[in-house]
Amino acid sequence: MEVYPKSFENLLESYKKLPGVGEKSAERMALATLDMSLEDVLKMSEALVQAKKELHSCPICGNLTDQEICSICDDSNRNHNLICVVEDYKSAFAFEKVGNFKGVYHVLNGLISPMMNIGADDINLSSLISRVEKLEHPEIILALKSSIEGETTTLYIKKIFEKKDVVISRLAYGLPMGAEIEYLDMVTLDKALFDRKIISE
Amino acid sequence: MEVYPKSFENLLESYKKLPGVGEKSAERMALATLDMSLEDVLKMSEALVQAKKELHSCPICGNLTDQEICSICDDSNRNHNLICVVEDYKSAFAFEKVGNFKGVYHVLNGLISPMMNIGADDINLSSLISRVEKLEHPEIILALKSSIEGETTTLYIKKIFEKKDVVISRLAYGLPMGAEIEYLDMVTLDKALFDRKIISE
Repeated sequence: MEVYPKSFENLLESYKKLPGVGEKSAERMALATLDMSLEDVLKMSEALVQAKKELHSCPICGNLTDQEICSICDDSNRNHNLICVVEDYKSAFAFEKVGNFKGVYHVLNGLISPMMNIGADDINLSSLISRVEKLEHPEIILALKSSIEGETTTLYIKKIFEKKDVVISRLAYGLPMGAEIEYLDMVTLDKALFDRKIISE
Repeated sequence: MEVYPKSFENLLESYKKLPGVGEKSAERMALATLDMSLEDVLKMSEALVQAKKELHSCPICGNLTDQEICSICDDSNRNHNLICVVEDYKSAFAFEKVGNFKGVYHVLNGLISPMMNIGADDINLSSLISRVEKLEHPEIILALKSSIEGETTTLYIKKIFEKKDVVISRLAYGLPMGAEIEYLDMVTLDKALFDRKIISE
């Protein structure tokens, strides 16, 4: 039995592919779409395809970009000797929203997890090593969450650079255990950045 | 300061136009979009435009359709003398999901509301009158919510057909299935008592 007209059903099915969108929300969103202006719907339709086609990882830092190199790596006003290592795009977005960090990023796109069979080669780590080797007196800030995977990855990176001329710090404790960086309030995130502790130099 | 790449920002802005989608959900949805296959993104992009362009109100009943006449009005197996009057598309969808109603609908696309300055001419009512006049012994089921606006609209429609050969009923008021009597609001409990059904006499 068909409850919805076909083209309504198709839109519902698309919305239901988005995270946190169930049957009821999809129906509400689809009806709201019909109330939007044709211009806005066309904009959204184009934004989807454009985002999917143009966005990719920056070849230097792994952050999200629609340019050849991301706007942060391309910014000569930022400190390229200060690299903030984050798990994912969302963490980098969160720091940029606070706006106090003037270094650059390295997005790992994952964390080492022996339990999930994710090793150092499965995340964006080797490019960090070659990147750091080219710098003079670099500092690496490890901004990973305080979970087993986060700690494991922190320890692993610390070990890699242990005997090299690299200052390594991690975010200050003050992160609630197990919290996702993206959901932290901005003040806490800012404090954690400021209170970072050097763990090897 | 730009936190997001431009084409990511555009997608965010579009998602934020949807009901119940704030900054955080929009970010999550946009990132999920990047993880979708290009095929699915293209499908969604097309579904948006197609839905917006093809969907409109059925000229007979006012329900949502992408055909000239909606599939329910076009269905000769349904009882066209039994018209269920609903406020909006969502109400019609809800009845169709239950699947037991074999009549047809009339979607008012609103309710009379003196407070909001919405009169009988502002909703899809005149077409109901001309529609009913062509039928023999029709029954109208008023399936409107039990708010001031719903009651006002119910009374108004009742009045219109009062002296004509039309049976008019309204949905039963009463306990929702599974509800605890102690937690019911007093108005509902009072209505349920008033509308009680004799099960043996």
